Amino acid sequence: MHVLVIGAAGMVGRKLIARLAADGRLGGKTITALTAHDVVAPARIDAPFPVTTRVSDISVPGEAGALVADRPDVIFHLAAIVSGEAEADFDKGYRINFDGTRFLLDAVRLIEGYVPRLVFTSSIAVFGAPFPEAIGDDFFLTPLTSYGTQKAVGELLLADYSRRGFLDGVGIRLPTICVRPGKPNKAASGFFSGIIREPLAGQEAVLPVSEDVMHWHASPRAAVGFLLHAATFDTAPLGARRSLTMPGLAVTVGEQIEALRRVAGDAAVARIRRAPDPVIAQIVAGWPRRFDAARALSLGFKAEASFDEIIRIHVEDELGGQVA
Amino acid sequence: MHVLVIGAAGMVGRKLIARLAADGRLGGKTITALTAHDVVAPARIDAPFPVTTRVSDISVPGEAGALVADRPDVIFHLAAIVSGEAEADFDKGYRINFDGTRFLLDAVRLIEGYVPRLVFTSSIAVFGAPFPEAIGDDFFLTPLTSYGTQKAVGELLLADYSRRGFLDGVGIRLPTICVRPGKPNKAASGFFSGIIREPLAGQEAVLPVSEDVMHWHASPRAAVGFLLHAATFDTAPLGARRSLTMPGLAVTVGEQIEALRRVAGDAAVARIRRAPDPVIAQIVAGWPRRFDAARALSLGFKAEASFDEIIRIHVEDELGGQVA
Repeated sequence: MHVLVIGAAGMVGRKLIARLAADGRLGGKTITALTAHDVVAPARIDAPFPVTTRVSDISVPGEAGALVADRPDVIFHLAAIVSGEAEADFDKGYRINFDGTRFLLDAVRLIEGYVPRLVFTSSIAVFGAPFPEAIGDDFFLTPLTSYGTQKAVGELLLADYSRRGFLDGVGIRLPTICVRPGKPNKAASGFFSGIIREPLAGQEAVLPVSEDVMHWHASPRAAVGFLLHAATFDTAPLGARRSLTMPGLAVTVGEQIEALRRVAGDAAVARIRRAPDPVIAQIVAGWPRRFDAARALSLGFKAEASFDEIIRIHVEDELGGQVA
Repeated sequence: MHVLVIGAAGMVGRKLIARLAADGRLGGKTITALTAHDVVAPARIDAPFPVTTRVSDISVPGEAGALVADRPDVIFHLAAIVSGEAEADFDKGYRINFDGTRFLLDAVRLIEGYVPRLVFTSSIAVFGAPFPEAIGDDFFLTPLTSYGTQKAVGELLLADYSRRGFLDGVGIRLPTICVRPGKPNKAASGFFSGIIREPLAGQEAVLPVSEDVMHWHASPRAAVGFLLHAATFDTAPLGARRSLTMPGLAVTVGEQIEALRRVAGDAAVARIRRAPDPVIAQIVAGWPRRFDAARALSLGFKAEASFDEIIRIHVEDELGGQVA
């Protein structure tokens, strides 16, 4: 089985490839080759199968065609300009997220008799407020950002190209990934990970919102699990509705902090500094808080059951089991 | 005020231009120029303002830019490859309905300080079964055709470009237009008009489905009314949700026939020949039957209240008030 990962240099892409290398198999089949693609060179990795690295821009006509010319059996399309950048640079967001996705789908379509499984990472940003208490599988597409619009368009194309038999597409709407490893970034959502990651590493973290803010989380390990399941489950029950809201965990910031206390003690919690930021509070107020991901759960997708578990996964996978 | 009609040679485009020519005004302002565009030459029309005819393909890069270079105040974007053709010719449908619409929106975006009202005709084909009994304003986009997918993408772009301040967009999802004037065509929906139009003209019509089939109708005159209102109403209450399901009338085929009997008598009804067609019956079974268009109604959009009225409009507008 030949696997293509587009967006291989990103956090989720790196973890996905590490998992595929560790397993050596996908859906019961031996992986015989993996192509790791990104606009910057993905890191080298040891794997029991040959890994080919490709660097190009899929929004340049012809590049997507070159990527799929050797007919990978499974394509993970993770590449995207993130929300903040797609809002700041309109042209770049549409070029990569809109044109790039369409070029990829069309490149697959134009190869006669080739119908790969194509896993597309969508986002809960396809939904915009006002929301019901829990957002169901049939809530309508109401993006309030260009990024969310581009992901929603990707979902629609994926469904139409699948219906026409050009590919076997699955769109998965990822929760906010927490605890996100690495350094703090400027994303408005950054604090959800920061208030756990920094205290666990013995550093101060800033909390810009009140503790009653609720949000929808899953660990990086769960995200990789979603991708693997999306690549291998039976898509027949999907019918024409090919995109799924992934399961996750709805917790308040206060519940996150209490979980941190249980896992790492009062000393860790004491490293969280309150610094209310009305701008961030307002952005976050427009975000989804909770989903009813009944459809994905019924199809076998699994997320964490407690925030303690999400923290422990971070400690195991990123900190070698040690907390500061 | 300068008005641009894209798709001017189509049935709705022709009726819209005739109405604008009759009124001489739009939303209380005198029309000073009208540009009638289509891929084939629109018919000449007498109007109290200069009418410029343009023939080009908006999916050819640069053509959309040329069309909006003189900054029309209101743009009606009615041009589309229809459902059956978009399904039969995948490339053509995406080229005109997807690329063409995006090129138009981008051409507007790239003119500095230009924010026209842009009315986009979407379709109830953005919705696919299974449906609730009445489809509400927050039912999700679930197209089951490439045409419906392309219209749904158009709606998403219209919302994002409006939110970003590039244009003032309104998407209107038209009901099935009934009674459609002209000759019978091969559209699966053709019989809804045919069983009224042909008998009124003294000719036989074929009914391929049972009388309990319900569908969602509005007259061509109502469609023009929707367009005029969409071009002139205050869009502030729309917020980020720029597309509206237009009001219409949910009637069964049996109710259509009884209305025909009231307007034109038993002799007209006798010209309807039953010829059940399982293929057409199955296609129609997947179509929307009834909507709850509360939002559009609250914003002042108006449709017919009875099918008798829809038939009388056809008799007045197409038959000079005479029935066979």
